[in-house]
Amino acid sequence: MFTSTTQIRVHYALTDQMGVVYHGRYAEFFEIGRSEAIRDLGFTYKDIEAMGVIMAVVEINIKYIRPIRYDDFINVKTTLTQLPTDHRVSFHSEIYSQDDQLLSKGIVTFYFLEAKNMQKTNMPEPLYNLLKGYF
Amino acid sequence: MFTSTTQIRVHYALTDQMGVVYHGRYAEFFEIGRSEAIRDLGFTYKDIEAMGVIMAVVEINIKYIRPIRYDDFINVKTTLTQLPTDHRVSFHSEIYSQDDQLLSKGIVTFYFLEAKNMQKTNMPEPLYNLLKGYF
Amino acid sequence: MFTSTTQIRVHYALTDQMGVVYHGRYAEFFEIGRSEAIRDLGFTYKDIEAMGVIMAVVEINIKYIRPIRYDDFINVKTTLTQLPTDHRVSFHSEIYSQDDQLLSKGIVTFYFLEAKNMQKTNMPEPLYNLLKGYF
Amino acid sequence: MFTSTTQIRVHYALTDQMGVVYHGRYAEFFEIGRSEAIRDLGFTYKDIEAMGVIMAVVEINIKYIRPIRYDDFINVKTTLTQLPTDHRVSFHSEIYSQDDQLLSKGIVTFYFLEAKNMQKTNMPEPLYNLLKGYF
Repeated sequence: MFTSTTQIRVHYALTDQMGVVYHGRYAEFFEIGRSEAIRDLGFTYKDIEAMGVIMAVVEINIKYIRPIRYDDFINVKTTLTQLPTDHRVSFHSEIYSQDDQLLSKGIVTFYFLEAKNMQKTNMPEPLYNLLKGYF
Repeated sequence: MFTSTTQIRVHYALTDQMGVVYHGRYAEFFEIGRSEAIRDLGFTYKDIEAMGVIMAVVEINIKYIRPIRYDDFINVKTTLTQLPTDHRVSFHSEIYSQDDQLLSKGIVTFYFLEAKNMQKTNMPEPLYNLLKGYF
Repeated sequence: MFTSTTQIRVHYALTDQMGVVYHGRYAEFFEIGRSEAIRDLGFTYKDIEAMGVIMAVVEINIKYIRPIRYDDFINVKTTLTQLPTDHRVSFHSEIYSQDDQLLSKGIVTFYFLEAKNMQKTNMPEPLYNLLKGYF
Repeated sequence: MFTSTTQIRVHYALTDQMGVVYHGRYAEFFEIGRSEAIRDLGFTYKDIEAMGVIMAVVEINIKYIRPIRYDDFINVKTTLTQLPTDHRVSFHSEIYSQDDQLLSKGIVTFYFLEAKNMQKTNMPEPLYNLLKGYF
């Protein structure tokens, strides 16, 4: 299992007139969490794109448990529960408050695609090699 | 069953550097579809809030089937498959291209809450009355 | 002078916890107005990009006169006061309420650039030809 | 003069299909810079709202000098060149790359308003007192 935690300060643009973060913006919290998780491995998503591979989202599921508000300083925990062995990868995300209450959790599933022809491909080997030690 | 279809022109701000609509923005397409569905009934979400009730998102699920691109003119079909009988309501959304290809589908689930104390409540009666003829 | 007016329904995602549209989102209203203005000419911004030309924003100025709120149905008026004769073009935008109150106005200035080398270029000739009759 | 610098990592959602940050999103960089500048003083914008005062944007001006790209780690420098003496305050923002190139600059002007009646008011005294030592 590979896990990484990132902190995000919630800025005003993310709120809506209900006084909480708009539900559509949670995908960005998860995105930031994934990016920083990959960076923790010594790789970046930018490196993946530079190798001619893109990660196309195929499904997202988000549960909204407690509201997230302006200026909250949240912890986004990103977990890879399984080492991908084909074109598919799922990241599990959980968002926690400063006092460790679970605010949201979600799963985002991607296909690795070759940018040049949009054909399915495997996780790039350098990333796979960095990850396999965790499983 | 109650169904309503809305057209949306995809503007540039919604795209990302992959050349497609960023996955987090689909929640907005669904939101616009729901708003217009309620308006088709002769009611608005603004009326709901004016009655002291808010609809808090508790879960969202989105499947990304084919990419949506800048300047696409998409049809968002919003369906209520069941008449809500308690504090819970789920909207089913499908996005179609101009040539009727399914691009995405999703489900967004809400709780009706009283704004003043955040307690669960039922769907406001005026909206319920407008809807019940469809079921 | 070339002028075009577009209507936009304000959706929830655009609001912030002040109960009004977040100031950063006005750029999107102007963008939609410009796109539809070009479409009114029988051309699209997508056509411009397909010709290998991009329009890079170099400056934006926005005045916020009266708040814009959720579910408002606004008119975005886009005006080209001068026919561009070099790589530079400025669009003037005004946003009006249904009862014709001025809510915001702004100017967005672009450079036409060749996508392949990011060198300044003139407005694509087909667009220039469609516009010159208005001046 | 009061100056504060904040670092921001550019996430994917901010990009558009031109491969750069969408021009409308720069307002968010400036917002984050201002928030952190106020926090550096030992105050927060949330405290201002808790005192019944809001800061309503009345004008924004942004110059786009060099593109900002995905995964860039930018420095946002926020400067108050004058101590506000009435309801009006202007923040000057500059965005720099890691190698200290100026990418963008802008000015955002606000009115301090009493939330309860939207009447103009002065900068809240606690914030004024923290700032005056810098001028």
